[in-house]
Amino acid sequence: MDRLEELSAIEDIKRLKAKYFRTLDTKDWSGFASVFAPDAQMDMRAELRHQAGRNAGTLLQGRDPVLVGPDVITAFVSAALPAELTSVHQGYMPEIILTGPDSASGIWAMTDYLEQAGTGIHGYGHYHETYRRYGDTWLIQTLELRRIRVDTFED
Amino acid sequence: MDRLEELSAIEDIKRLKAKYFRTLDTKDWSGFASVFAPDAQMDMRAELRHQAGRNAGTLLQGRDPVLVGPDVITAFVSAALPAELTSVHQGYMPEIILTGPDSASGIWAMTDYLEQAGTGIHGYGHYHETYRRYGDTWLIQTLELRRIRVDTFED
Amino acid sequence: MDRLEELSAIEDIKRLKAKYFRTLDTKDWSGFASVFAPDAQMDMRAELRHQAGRNAGTLLQGRDPVLVGPDVITAFVSAALPAELTSVHQGYMPEIILTGPDSASGIWAMTDYLEQAGTGIHGYGHYHETYRRYGDTWLIQTLELRRIRVDTFED
Repeated sequence: MDRLEELSAIEDIKRLKAKYFRTLDTKDWSGFASVFAPDAQMDMRAELRHQAGRNAGTLLQGRDPVLVGPDVITAFVSAALPAELTSVHQGYMPEIILTGPDSASGIWAMTDYLEQAGTGIHGYGHYHETYRRYGDTWLIQTLELRRIRVDTFED
Repeated sequence: MDRLEELSAIEDIKRLKAKYFRTLDTKDWSGFASVFAPDAQMDMRAELRHQAGRNAGTLLQGRDPVLVGPDVITAFVSAALPAELTSVHQGYMPEIILTGPDSASGIWAMTDYLEQAGTGIHGYGHYHETYRRYGDTWLIQTLELRRIRVDTFED
Repeated sequence: MDRLEELSAIEDIKRLKAKYFRTLDTKDWSGFASVFAPDAQMDMRAELRHQAGRNAGTLLQGRDPVLVGPDVITAFVSAALPAELTSVHQGYMPEIILTGPDSASGIWAMTDYLEQAGTGIHGYGHYHETYRRYGDTWLIQTLELRRIRVDTFED
């Protein structure tokens, strides 16, 4: 892969992750499902510690915290972020590295702000991700969120 | 347009939008005017709902909420953000698509934090924009802000 | 330098700055030292006004507020951000310009959120920086933070 192809792939992956965030916060769930590879894995193990008593924590009780596939991931995330919850996720400062002709890794700084019925969290951390290219389309292969901190609030 | 030209245009547009935010928050109004195309349109209709009783809302009363041209846009924005108001705008996660040799569209996640005399807002949303190239220079052609939420605060 | 080389350098510099922020907030101090040129300068003069009474202000008392070299910079920053302080720095909206075959300038919008024992700051501003290339590796040459505002808080 030459440098132009690398830069092109990096921009595609940035736009992919932008779509992840936009569809998440506008609750465009079919758009959200479309950013994941067929066998994508969302690893919620590190996240579980911070979500006790919250939607995500309750939904994960008694099940495997590694979610597999776009449908399972989207069903989980859309249930954790119902219409009455407002979410704002910010992603910034990507470090994307091509690891092969059709594979890449990325780290993104992130914050999230979740509010429902006057209570919520402000969270901070980094996504550690991998990506895979299917034909011309880059998709998220694996995703794990590692937190720096989570603040809770009540209005 | 080949892929290198596309990537070059995308980087130019990102830098253009960075200048928009920086000149806005440092109140560099001649710099701010320079990011808009001669017939640029800033559509404040969706924004009006969130600005009732604030500077921007008061300034729009009784006039067309679609502002046209760099001078009109800059006069409005600089009046809405006077010296005694501090603003912090964040833009992130661009999705920029070339729609022709000299035209592009973009979506940016955004937050703003406006404070004056101890009261203000924390706002969240997405800019939906188009861009046009004049010679070598990309400029903002149309801009609309769609909100996810706006929180008000008093110190 | 052709446009491809420019875009390549800009992406390298973005990734360099992402590493700056990530190693800072995860307190990976050897990683943090690796982003600076041998004679890098961190200019704390503008920052001093906002840090009176805080870790950084106390540490700068009676010494030159222009810190020189990766070791001096890292010793200072790691002392200002001890383990019991949580920091979240956000960088976004870069304006990076190549100023020569091996030199560049950049402006980044930033926010920081520092908390220790229930008190802290939310700060906002812009980094004004220069970069230099050593072989294939871009490093930070000079760094100055200019603030828009700093809010203090107590839990």
